[in-house]
Amino acid sequence: MKLLSYRSADRRSWGALVDREIVDLGRANPAWPTLAFALGEAGADGIGRAVTAAANTTHRVALDSVELLPAVPDPQKVLCVGLNFEKHRIETGRERTEHPVIFTRFADTFVGHGAPLVRPAASECFDFEGEVALVIGRGGRRIAPEDALAHIAGITCLNDGSIRDFQSHTHQFTPGKNFPATGSMGPWLVTLDEIADLAELELITRLNGAEVQRAPLSDLTYSIPEIVAYCSSWTELRPGDVIATGTPGGIGARREPPLWMELGDVCEVEVSGVGVLRNTILDEG
Amino acid sequence: MKLLSYRSADRRSWGALVDREIVDLGRANPAWPTLAFALGEAGADGIGRAVTAAANTTHRVALDSVELLPAVPDPQKVLCVGLNFEKHRIETGRERTEHPVIFTRFADTFVGHGAPLVRPAASECFDFEGEVALVIGRGGRRIAPEDALAHIAGITCLNDGSIRDFQSHTHQFTPGKNFPATGSMGPWLVTLDEIADLAELELITRLNGAEVQRAPLSDLTYSIPEIVAYCSSWTELRPGDVIATGTPGGIGARREPPLWMELGDVCEVEVSGVGVLRNTILDEG
Repeated sequence: MKLLSYRSADRRSWGALVDREIVDLGRANPAWPTLAFALGEAGADGIGRAVTAAANTTHRVALDSVELLPAVPDPQKVLCVGLNFEKHRIETGRERTEHPVIFTRFADTFVGHGAPLVRPAASECFDFEGEVALVIGRGGRRIAPEDALAHIAGITCLNDGSIRDFQSHTHQFTPGKNFPATGSMGPWLVTLDEIADLAELELITRLNGAEVQRAPLSDLTYSIPEIVAYCSSWTELRPGDVIATGTPGGIGARREPPLWMELGDVCEVEVSGVGVLRNTILDEG
Repeated sequence: MKLLSYRSADRRSWGALVDREIVDLGRANPAWPTLAFALGEAGADGIGRAVTAAANTTHRVALDSVELLPAVPDPQKVLCVGLNFEKHRIETGRERTEHPVIFTRFADTFVGHGAPLVRPAASECFDFEGEVALVIGRGGRRIAPEDALAHIAGITCLNDGSIRDFQSHTHQFTPGKNFPATGSMGPWLVTLDEIADLAELELITRLNGAEVQRAPLSDLTYSIPEIVAYCSSWTELRPGDVIATGTPGGIGARREPPLWMELGDVCEVEVSGVGVLRNTILDEG
């Protein structure tokens, strides 16, 4: 099942993709105004039943007629794992750590598939970071690695777009990771029942059609279950929360010369079995 | 004007403190359900007029009869400045930086005045950090330092309670700053019109009555206007957002032997002209 969030005629809603149509679950189920809320109330299974119930109603809209929002537009928490592919850690020159490196992004840093990524006026150092992200379905604290999959609703593609000069202003990454509309998430989340093996997912980033990053999820230093376990050891995960699992080697900042995203460039993040997240770069203002 | 958020008989509300009574502005103005929302809709001036309008109604409740929540329980963003007093920077052994060090806390890491701070089972290294925090009244981007005060609704006391071993798991502070209920904020915010000069505020932290931190705000490396300007250069500040401006020297982790907060300890953060934020330490579970 593919679940997504969108805007249509100034109304925000969410739904499931069936063929090339969206079953408008926000309209069919007014008690579940957002995907994050529905995940908390009904879980992916309950949403699946709602799709069946709504499938033959008039609550349908063509995918091409809507503006996609981030798969989850309103996560309470977005946690990002840094340096989680060995090749990327080495290219940044950083030491190995005994725990995952975690930083945060605010929800307003993300746009959906097809919306422009905005290069800020303050910097030319706008870099891509293709990532696999997981969306929490069932919340919790102190989740054991072996229980982690039961807490994940699904997987989405994420571009952890980064303003490199601001990221290195100090040892904390926050500013460079939090310019508005510098990241993207989508086009949808694919529920976990449709993914045979997380470790077999392949992650590819392309800039203007040229492949710039590629890695299998089996290369993650900290696996998805280990990440969920670690994060839930110090924060409560809630339905709709997003965890970006880290970017592979190949970022623009470590190329010679550096490869920055510019006006008109097209950046794609593809995750096998999930989809392609595509955004064009726009200059601010 | 002192503005606060509270729970009374399972209802959450917010209001203004007049003598020892709260004027219940959440009840008097149902269109403004939270302080953050009211700051966005009406500003501190509009809230002041609402206090006058409600003062002689029955929308009053005794301060002693309610459970105080964090001054703003639902900020969209909590930004924290690290290493912003020179004595604290030196005690941590870190280099000077050319920009403020910024990390984030989630809203669920805070409790209000009088509520317990929770030492997690996962660590004994629970440290205090007394701070002055500002609450954004009028949102914005690219706020010039000379315009910053016009964007600040008021000032509150904040305890940026930190789990030191988790904070140093990697170079990113996130885990050690985000255990639930390890920080506090309150008891109220004092609106800026009642503060003659931010630089003259005095910040004092006490543990079990003994002074452990003291500094005037004039000792800040980056002043409050400079902090607001920097943060708004990369993120949009919104009404109700909180910025914690940094802790002075004297933290428990850098004492010999270290001074950790334990079950039954009482930690106070006092800001002159604002109030005293007092919390007792509870062990998790």
